[in-house]
Amino acid sequence: MTGHRHRVVIIGGGFGGVNAARALARADVDVTVADRTNHHLFQPLLYQVATGILPEGLIAPALRSVIGKQANARALLAEVRQLDLDARVVRAVAPDGRPVELPYDTLVVAGGATHAYFGNDAWAEFETGMKTLDDARHLRSHILSAFEMAELATDPAERARYLTFVVVGAGPTGVELVGQVAELAHKVLPRDYRSVDTTEARILLVEAAPAVLGPFHPKLRDYTRRRLAKMGVDVRLNTMAVAMDHDSITVKGPDGEERIPARTKIWAAGVQASPLARMLAEATGTETDRAGRVAVLPDCTLPGHPEVFAIGDMVALNNLPGVAQPAIQEGKYVGKVVRARLEGDTEVKPFAYFDKGSMATIGHLHAVADARGMRFTGVLGYTMWGFVHVLYLVGWGNRLGTLYTWARALTFTHGRAHRIITVDQARYELTADEAGLGVSR
Amino acid sequence: MTGHRHRVVIIGGGFGGVNAARALARADVDVTVADRTNHHLFQPLLYQVATGILPEGLIAPALRSVIGKQANARALLAEVRQLDLDARVVRAVAPDGRPVELPYDTLVVAGGATHAYFGNDAWAEFETGMKTLDDARHLRSHILSAFEMAELATDPAERARYLTFVVVGAGPTGVELVGQVAELAHKVLPRDYRSVDTTEARILLVEAAPAVLGPFHPKLRDYTRRRLAKMGVDVRLNTMAVAMDHDSITVKGPDGEERIPARTKIWAAGVQASPLARMLAEATGTETDRAGRVAVLPDCTLPGHPEVFAIGDMVALNNLPGVAQPAIQEGKYVGKVVRARLEGDTEVKPFAYFDKGSMATIGHLHAVADARGMRFTGVLGYTMWGFVHVLYLVGWGNRLGTLYTWARALTFTHGRAHRIITVDQARYELTADEAGLGVSR
Repeated sequence: MTGHRHRVVIIGGGFGGVNAARALARADVDVTVADRTNHHLFQPLLYQVATGILPEGLIAPALRSVIGKQANARALLAEVRQLDLDARVVRAVAPDGRPVELPYDTLVVAGGATHAYFGNDAWAEFETGMKTLDDARHLRSHILSAFEMAELATDPAERARYLTFVVVGAGPTGVELVGQVAELAHKVLPRDYRSVDTTEARILLVEAAPAVLGPFHPKLRDYTRRRLAKMGVDVRLNTMAVAMDHDSITVKGPDGEERIPARTKIWAAGVQASPLARMLAEATGTETDRAGRVAVLPDCTLPGHPEVFAIGDMVALNNLPGVAQPAIQEGKYVGKVVRARLEGDTEVKPFAYFDKGSMATIGHLHAVADARGMRFTGVLGYTMWGFVHVLYLVGWGNRLGTLYTWARALTFTHGRAHRIITVDQARYELTADEAGLGVSR
Repeated sequence: MTGHRHRVVIIGGGFGGVNAARALARADVDVTVADRTNHHLFQPLLYQVATGILPEGLIAPALRSVIGKQANARALLAEVRQLDLDARVVRAVAPDGRPVELPYDTLVVAGGATHAYFGNDAWAEFETGMKTLDDARHLRSHILSAFEMAELATDPAERARYLTFVVVGAGPTGVELVGQVAELAHKVLPRDYRSVDTTEARILLVEAAPAVLGPFHPKLRDYTRRRLAKMGVDVRLNTMAVAMDHDSITVKGPDGEERIPARTKIWAAGVQASPLARMLAEATGTETDRAGRVAVLPDCTLPGHPEVFAIGDMVALNNLPGVAQPAIQEGKYVGKVVRARLEGDTEVKPFAYFDKGSMATIGHLHAVADARGMRFTGVLGYTMWGFVHVLYLVGWGNRLGTLYTWARALTFTHGRAHRIITVDQARYELTADEAGLGVSR
């Protein structure tokens, strides 16, 4: 024997990784969760950080504290460089450049996803995605800076460019973001500006498919589209982004091509699996799919490597959507499989997804919820959405803090307590590709 | 006549600037407040952002919303480049590089201060100051990263370097910061770490003077020193920082020179007035003092320029301390002078400072307060400190949010809800001067 307990190394402290770790709390194993940040990010509420509603900390508890009470688990901050499946060791690097080696008996890879520009990687320079707290900080400061610059602009065309916001992609993230940008422009900011009327802002939602919120029931899709229109959002269906530069985005729809002058383009159209998926595919001689995801067997293991699991957004399995629930359920499932194996039970059922439904907010007090045949809209949908999301946050302190912050944001003053542009951000935001001011940290 | 209302341009949205603007709320003037950020920063609580207690938004409401209800005032985001006192115009630049010209009839310069390394500007590379939200974000991520690296270190000397925190300067900021670093190491973090015992952290407070909290009553100074010692802080009085590099700081005290291996050095020893002070001094042919502050007349105006006021930390007047109260009172005073002049009253009394006292926290539930001959320590001092600071926050939403967050932090779990290291920060923090990983934004 090797003289040590069974070692489970989990890469990624998101929904998949944390749930896998928790499912092993009482197992006779040593669990290590490695992540390139120190927090467990609750991505479904990231758009609220990006639009000044919630502070970062409430949706990003320290990974250490999330698994702090689990005696057999530890967290560490390191970015993975290599997965050596033959030697059964993960090679990573810590923030100070130190190499970190993590030998394992079981490996769980839950690296998530990042933005995908479908071959137009140069767009990353002009567009803002939303997957990390860095993205949310950047997006928040970018949106707020655009209104600031509009206030200073003297040329009407220039002012219009600053006051035009284009969200590409009408999935839940795109719908929720565009709704909050509309709230900012129409409800939150008007009273604070003197030269510019922020309600004149032009807010577009561009979607290649013929409907918003594709996977939802048609009634909810229609409701969402009407509700967005009522909020002043120009929804363009069957329309694709075809070109982009610093000052504009060009879209192609049923009426042909249109170049829309716009300084703010927000990408919510597609994700690309973490590069870890490609590493795993290469190690097993398989290919990743178009979204960069690696194929796994029905028990979430890698072909030929029963000791290696891959879960969450970076995995192509049963065509599951890239949201929290599949990752959470796969994480719990993997924990169960590992426990069963340790007890000598190698015959485990394949992973089965239980669809709890989908939800999305559409601005102030409105949401749609589609739960196993039941459909809710408006304030009722919003209440359900709020209840479920608060419930899934980690810790009562964060739950109460979020309820308090929402109560502030929902009062008639439409408070947005976290409208931050720092000195460094002000110097950077709108001049990233200009020679003007220097970028300092 | 010029056909416009009397124009008051205020540079800086800190305590001085905002209070000057508010004091002019009912005057027949147009007020413009320009700042290089979009928020009104409550600096006395910045150390709580830097140590993970408070989220940024609660101490940094948008400047626009702070003066949003004041019909005669507007805010704008621009960094000042030139003060043209002859032409009576301020020349600034917006985040997108756009030049912004602000003609004035009355100018109020309230640019505050930044760190000063007393001729050792190269230290800025190794040390972390604390004046802006960028500083606080950086410091928080730096402190947390040091514990993360200690957890990964295998060499005892290296681990000790990461676990040594040296705060230079024992004024209120230094004392409050070092107290919170001690809280983190001894109370908050221990249960979350597996390999390293964070209570072994070495925490030093270095002060050139013979006492901590110099301006406080000797009894409070002694209390603070004893309390810090009880918290495990190694207080070195009559000791100066004489050298610094990436891995260490060298201090010189009564027992000679000592090189202390330490990755984290926090600068709370001195401030330098905003460069705007030098601009004003040059424009009037005067010199700034050692701290870069410009001299003003007893009515806060510039010699030869009764229409130009300078207030707050960037001004040398009656040897006032660089804290909030002088700036607040000077702001209000300037507003009163401007109003009086508009009513034809040019004979105004010189500015008189009303000393409300001083306060500082020393970690968990302890503080010292020195208020007009009355002195408070311990929980009573802490309660007074908390009451006064919450009262001075802007808006009931932020006051309640802060009370809630403190209640979380003060419970037996010592919760720190905002322990954030982002992807970009993890890649950057401890490798700023190393070739290792790239810095991306």
